[in-house]
Amino acid sequence: MSDQPVGPVPPFEPPYYTVVFTSLRTEAEDIGHADDGYDETGARMDDLVASVPGFLGMDSARTPGGLGITVGYFRDEEAILRWRGHAEHRTAQKRGRAQWYEKYVVHVAKVERSHGFERGDDLVRG
Amino acid sequence: MSDQPVGPVPPFEPPYYTVVFTSLRTEAEDIGHADDGYDETGARMDDLVASVPGFLGMDSARTPGGLGITVGYFRDEEAILRWRGHAEHRTAQKRGRAQWYEKYVVHVAKVERSHGFERGDDLVRG
Repeated sequence: MSDQPVGPVPPFEPPYYTVVFTSLRTEAEDIGHADDGYDETGARMDDLVASVPGFLGMDSARTPGGLGITVGYFRDEEAILRWRGHAEHRTAQKRGRAQWYEKYVVHVAKVERSHGFERGDDLVRG
Repeated sequence: MSDQPVGPVPPFEPPYYTVVFTSLRTEAEDIGHADDGYDETGARMDDLVASVPGFLGMDSARTPGGLGITVGYFRDEEAILRWRGHAEHRTAQKRGRAQWYEKYVVHVAKVERSHGFERGDDLVRG
């Protein structure tokens, strides 16, 4: 973990868009099924979304046995539509509903302001 | 864990607001300091924010040793301002910068659309 760059994604110049995806996994996760394709597909989606023009960044966290939250940031609505319509992403979404998720909610929102704090630094404004 | 109601917060009728707070804790967490007041203050803030008129709900997730994401939902900007200006919340924010957080970013955004999926249910729209 400590070798990997860990977020959070920085603030950007508003306006930009955020897509908040909150989810509960199906039981498979709890009983330790590592072979249901979830991690592999997730890694593939991370690569794919990064190639979408207008994609700004993404943060993810999951409490073990609990809720997962993924927040993606996009320059504009067009970028979100590109990602939403991506064929491989659509296939993964279907599999998510069929297999991986007990429940999820998606909120699409336009960021009006943002700021960041970093220890030892001044406040950073987007 | 399984006795507690776990999110995700459902979709609401747009427009409404979301505040995305992504953070990295200071080292204290990694070395298992349970006595730095973070959990206690967090629980108190959960109670307090729930009493703010216009507060709709909140989801949190934290990857062990990694990123934490808290997403709050509010009916309007006034509700966010009430929460931002709450005296006890402001004190907690100061302590967060002084003690608990290595880094954090806040994005304030207006939700334009949302939807939810629940296994065995139809798609739910906000």
